[in-house]
Formats: sequence, structure tokens, C-alpha cells
Amino acid sequence: MAILLREAIGDQLRRVRTDQGRTLREVSTSARVSLGYLSEVERGQKEASSELLAAICDALDVPIGDVLTEVGRALSPVVIDVIPADATAAAELVAA
Amino acid sequence: MAILLREAIGDQLRRVRTDQGRTLREVSTSARVSLGYLSEVERGQKEASSELLAAICDALDVPIGDVLTEVGRALSPVVIDVIPADATAAAELVAA
Repeated sequence: MAILLREAIGDQLRRVRTDQGRTLREVSTSARVSLGYLSEVERGQKEASSELLAAICDALDVPIGDVLTEVGRALSPVVIDVIPADATAAAELVAA
Repeated sequence: MAILLREAIGDQLRRVRTDQGRTLREVSTSARVSLGYLSEVERGQKEASSELLAAICDALDVPIGDVLTEVGRALSPVVIDVIPADATAAAELVAA
């Protein structure tokens, strides 16, 4: 089965936290959630409610939208080939 | 308060569905969720579990990652000014 949303969210939250060199304890205290809850969310074992996800992102000082954008990429990696199209448009502008 | 994740997800699911000209009934039947549940999810009144969100996206024939990427943009709108840079790069390529 494909990766579930809660797993992708958990992976991303853990990545942000560990990149900041912070412990589960620090972030859970800051977000006012239990350490066990945060740990379960990070492992994709529990669905975070929207309110608690917002609190966790706030504690991590990361915009929730950025987390979700990364989650979207993790769930559907897409290569969008924009540069050639822009280059063509730019070349046409230059030629005009 | 800022938009909650479930509200942004609901907005996006509704947008995808209405863009396809499909009814709540059609999509809820296809996703095997109740019409009332789908309606509550679309209105941001209920948290969709990861499994049911996957089923709804499957019924809408849209990758869940694409939905989340759009949700991420809605939650943290960022203007990235890529075209002028690409145009400059392209112009330099053309000039070279």
C-alpha cells in the first residue's frame, strides 16, 4: 500500500525536528502535547488533529503549509519540466 | 485563527470535485464513505483519516500528493519569482 498521509506527515515532522537538533521532549513541551503523542504522530501511528498539528508546527517554528508542501512532494513526487518552456518563451521574447 | 489543515483539505477536495462536475453522492459512493461524512470533510468539520482521505482522492482520481501540495500552498502562500530568473538565464543562453 502507498504511504499514508499520517506517515508522510510524521516523517516530515521528525525530519524538521532532528534537523533542528531538538528532542521529542523539548518539542512536545513547547507544543503542549505529551511526548508519547508526539512520538506516535512522528511514527505515523496516530492521526494528528489539525489543532495539534498546528501546535507542533508552531513549536517547530515552521509554517504548516511548508510541511504540507513537503508532504505533498513525498506522496506524489512529480518532475515538472518548467525551465525549457520558460526558456522557449524567453527566447521568443528575445527574438521578438 | 489561521486556516486549519482540515479546512484547507476540505476546500481543496471540494474544488477538485466541483471542477469535475461531480456530486457529493457520486464521489461518496465511489469512495465508499457516507455522503454526510464527505460533506463534513469538505466543510472542514471533520478530520479525514489518512485511509479515508486516500479513498476520497482515489474516487476523485487525483494523487493525494497533489491535493496536499495545493493545501500546502493554500496554508502558506509563497510567491516565488522564478520566471524572470529563468528568462534571464535563457536570454544569456541565447546570447552565448
